[in-house]
Amino acid sequence: MTISLINLNADLGESFGAWHMGDDPALLQIVNSANVACGFHAGDPAIMRDTVRLALQRGVSIGAHPSYPDLQGFGRRVMQMSAQDLEATILYQVGALQAMAAAEGGRVTHVKPHGALNNVACADAAVAATVVRAVQSLDRSLILLAPAHSVLVKAAEAAGQPVRYEVFADRAYLDDGQLMPRSQPGAVLHEAQECVDHVLRMLKAQAIVTASGKHLPTRIDSICVHGDGPEAVATARAIRQALEQAGYTLAPLDCLPG
Amino acid sequence: MTISLINLNADLGESFGAWHMGDDPALLQIVNSANVACGFHAGDPAIMRDTVRLALQRGVSIGAHPSYPDLQGFGRRVMQMSAQDLEATILYQVGALQAMAAAEGGRVTHVKPHGALNNVACADAAVAATVVRAVQSLDRSLILLAPAHSVLVKAAEAAGQPVRYEVFADRAYLDDGQLMPRSQPGAVLHEAQECVDHVLRMLKAQAIVTASGKHLPTRIDSICVHGDGPEAVATARAIRQALEQAGYTLAPLDCLPG
Amino acid sequence: MTISLINLNADLGESFGAWHMGDDPALLQIVNSANVACGFHAGDPAIMRDTVRLALQRGVSIGAHPSYPDLQGFGRRVMQMSAQDLEATILYQVGALQAMAAAEGGRVTHVKPHGALNNVACADAAVAATVVRAVQSLDRSLILLAPAHSVLVKAAEAAGQPVRYEVFADRAYLDDGQLMPRSQPGAVLHEAQECVDHVLRMLKAQAIVTASGKHLPTRIDSICVHGDGPEAVATARAIRQALEQAGYTLAPLDCLPG
Amino acid sequence: MTISLINLNADLGESFGAWHMGDDPALLQIVNSANVACGFHAGDPAIMRDTVRLALQRGVSIGAHPSYPDLQGFGRRVMQMSAQDLEATILYQVGALQAMAAAEGGRVTHVKPHGALNNVACADAAVAATVVRAVQSLDRSLILLAPAHSVLVKAAEAAGQPVRYEVFADRAYLDDGQLMPRSQPGAVLHEAQECVDHVLRMLKAQAIVTASGKHLPTRIDSICVHGDGPEAVATARAIRQALEQAGYTLAPLDCLPG
Repeated sequence: MTISLINLNADLGESFGAWHMGDDPALLQIVNSANVACGFHAGDPAIMRDTVRLALQRGVSIGAHPSYPDLQGFGRRVMQMSAQDLEATILYQVGALQAMAAAEGGRVTHVKPHGALNNVACADAAVAATVVRAVQSLDRSLILLAPAHSVLVKAAEAAGQPVRYEVFADRAYLDDGQLMPRSQPGAVLHEAQECVDHVLRMLKAQAIVTASGKHLPTRIDSICVHGDGPEAVATARAIRQALEQAGYTLAPLDCLPG
Repeated sequence: MTISLINLNADLGESFGAWHMGDDPALLQIVNSANVACGFHAGDPAIMRDTVRLALQRGVSIGAHPSYPDLQGFGRRVMQMSAQDLEATILYQVGALQAMAAAEGGRVTHVKPHGALNNVACADAAVAATVVRAVQSLDRSLILLAPAHSVLVKAAEAAGQPVRYEVFADRAYLDDGQLMPRSQPGAVLHEAQECVDHVLRMLKAQAIVTASGKHLPTRIDSICVHGDGPEAVATARAIRQALEQAGYTLAPLDCLPG
Repeated sequence: MTISLINLNADLGESFGAWHMGDDPALLQIVNSANVACGFHAGDPAIMRDTVRLALQRGVSIGAHPSYPDLQGFGRRVMQMSAQDLEATILYQVGALQAMAAAEGGRVTHVKPHGALNNVACADAAVAATVVRAVQSLDRSLILLAPAHSVLVKAAEAAGQPVRYEVFADRAYLDDGQLMPRSQPGAVLHEAQECVDHVLRMLKAQAIVTASGKHLPTRIDSICVHGDGPEAVATARAIRQALEQAGYTLAPLDCLPG
Repeated sequence: MTISLINLNADLGESFGAWHMGDDPALLQIVNSANVACGFHAGDPAIMRDTVRLALQRGVSIGAHPSYPDLQGFGRRVMQMSAQDLEATILYQVGALQAMAAAEGGRVTHVKPHGALNNVACADAAVAATVVRAVQSLDRSLILLAPAHSVLVKAAEAAGQPVRYEVFADRAYLDDGQLMPRSQPGAVLHEAQECVDHVLRMLKAQAIVTASGKHLPTRIDSICVHGDGPEAVATARAIRQALEQAGYTLAPLDCLPG
């Protein structure tokens, strides 16, 4: 008997102080792994702890979602940082979240860089190596969650750090495996059914299926979904249902085979 | 044969970005335990990591020095925070430092609140309980370093969290065991010899010796010294030498008996 | 012929970066004067400028809404600041908003402290004097918008700085003229009609009408309304309509007689 | 009779909270114009106000020194910002300093971008235009202080905004008029006499004199000197004395002809 395991991940805990963002309780009923903001682009300490507690209650595994230090820009603006500063900045954020997890009786099992830092780490080998070095210096068993066909995946594998491959449910891909820039028409899939079809097609092919129809073979461990807006939650739910109907067993990232 | 153990502690890693503060390399040759700033009143991630590395190289034990979130005020201004926010804020900072220690092959063995937070925690039972709860929720073996005769000591003991008692080398005490406010004449001892005498007198008496000469019996585990300015470093060095000449063995906080 | 002038004011521009708060476009159709967040509790520079532009387009007069430096706490937490730091902090924020107004062809005509700073300035004469000194050192014609029967009103008048008196549409008053604490039942009026009646009653009496029915005579220049949530906007609109039906002419703060 | 006017400018007010940087009192006896940090890379509100007060007492003209929002990186790290965000960010900082100047009875007469923002604005026409637009929207008489042969000079002139040309006393130039990168040997002149010779040579030639000896003709209005470290202050003083001995009259930026 074969079990096909798959993971759904989403960014959570992105409120800050008096400001609210996202429907975390709804998403935590859908996904298996949460990328939790660590205070540098969103998520103050109290929100981090509340998010961790809710995730643990739902059996959702916890990942750190470190960012450039940029609350105003929500971590979406590239910042020039030395390797030394960047490495320490990532350590700082992951450690802060580990404390929340420890206080709530759980632990951080993966790391996924956020926003501009993720974009740079997916394309720039030096930054990717810095991210991996930070994670590895902290814990050689911490999983990196990284986009399939990214430089970040390669850096993690070169260093022998565990890595899981993600694809995006709502984003079109270029033929080189990169995400189509949001500025191009068709870059973002808006309909739930489109997203479901996109995900199932890639899983069946075990490949990134690009906008032109090209197949780029890859392992796929996790599907990234979003939770901003009622439609996004409905789409995430539809993807989960479709995966279950297709015979997949959903599991936290740390329960997937390496 | 009896060994008299004593600890010297100091606040370290209080630079930030391009701004320098304190003579950490000199102090790390004198003290046995470092209270390391965690980014909220001083100490950016890179400085935290560098401080931890240097401390480990010198065999100096590492403590977290969490603060109210107030870089501009250097953590010296009281802030009204809910217990929930304060507890998470402390967890966040201690966790961030734990990650630095882990990355450098060490660990955080004590926590000492900084500045205004320490002042409030020493006098306000509810805040003291919040500090202890944060530390305890993270690790039941983390030592609280707290002033002798403070409410914070009582809170730690009531909760069964390890606590070590400190006295200040350069501060005069009131008859109720509190520090004389800096605004009063004689509150701060400026001469090295004055500080040495003050410390030896208290250790011999196993008591806080107040400005009026009153003795308030207490266990004394650690002497807090300062490192801002060349005289402060010389004073700290003089205290260490006097302790060694008096037959004391200096030891990191986590090597003292509970 | 007599014209009865009255002003409606509200806090605006309280989004920050990617986080949204309040329905500013709706409120700007209702109120005559906007208290614009200046970056210390909410409102990044781009949001400040957008808010100023929208206000000017609607003929709404612009006020600075300075706060303690506390984004995470939304300026609702008391902070211990020296008079010198607080005065400079207020100058900084008002100046930043003045630049936005100048760039958009308008100007800042009033100042209203935000949140915890306002609460403290309404009760503590030293802080009230500091606030007034900051405003006065910048521009002797800048209007202070302050709660009737507050220490802040007295401080402004003692210094000869223009001041306008506000009452709150949705808050019950104690017999000493202070707001009933939110922790007490009945402190906040939730129904639009309740608020309308409260406002008209106070205007008619030219007095604060307390929860017990007592009248505390006062000039009333402005009514403070809120915009968080659809009901709040509907309530604000109802108050405006009731005032117009009662024969009042609504006007920006700087068009009211001194 | 001819008067040869020249200006000396320096960055000031770069302390922050408890952290000290630079010898402002010494520099204010030497330079004629101060570029005052505005809180985003250094300079909290109280320090800004103190710096402005001291400058006014010494007859030193006041310029705003706006930066990317990056205290930890001291504004030396490039940040990706939209034109809209950058423009508002500059307005915000200049406005904040204008308030300090107004409160102290003076005014801000020039603007000089700081650090990474200056570097980018000197090379990238779009960013240069954004900087000029911010300044111009605030006050069409505000002087931009910009490096000779920079894109920023061109942007200011194209927009009709007043601009003054500066050269650096302690930096070598490449043949294209750009500063030699600090990574190259000889990029920074360390000896006071070297700096004095460099400045006099450029003034005599009315040209940037490059490291290879090439002359790039340019107007020169101002010499930028530095104040970090006792040698830097001595060098600045030597330059001032050499200029006076060479017959130059030193004057604030706003007293130079356009």
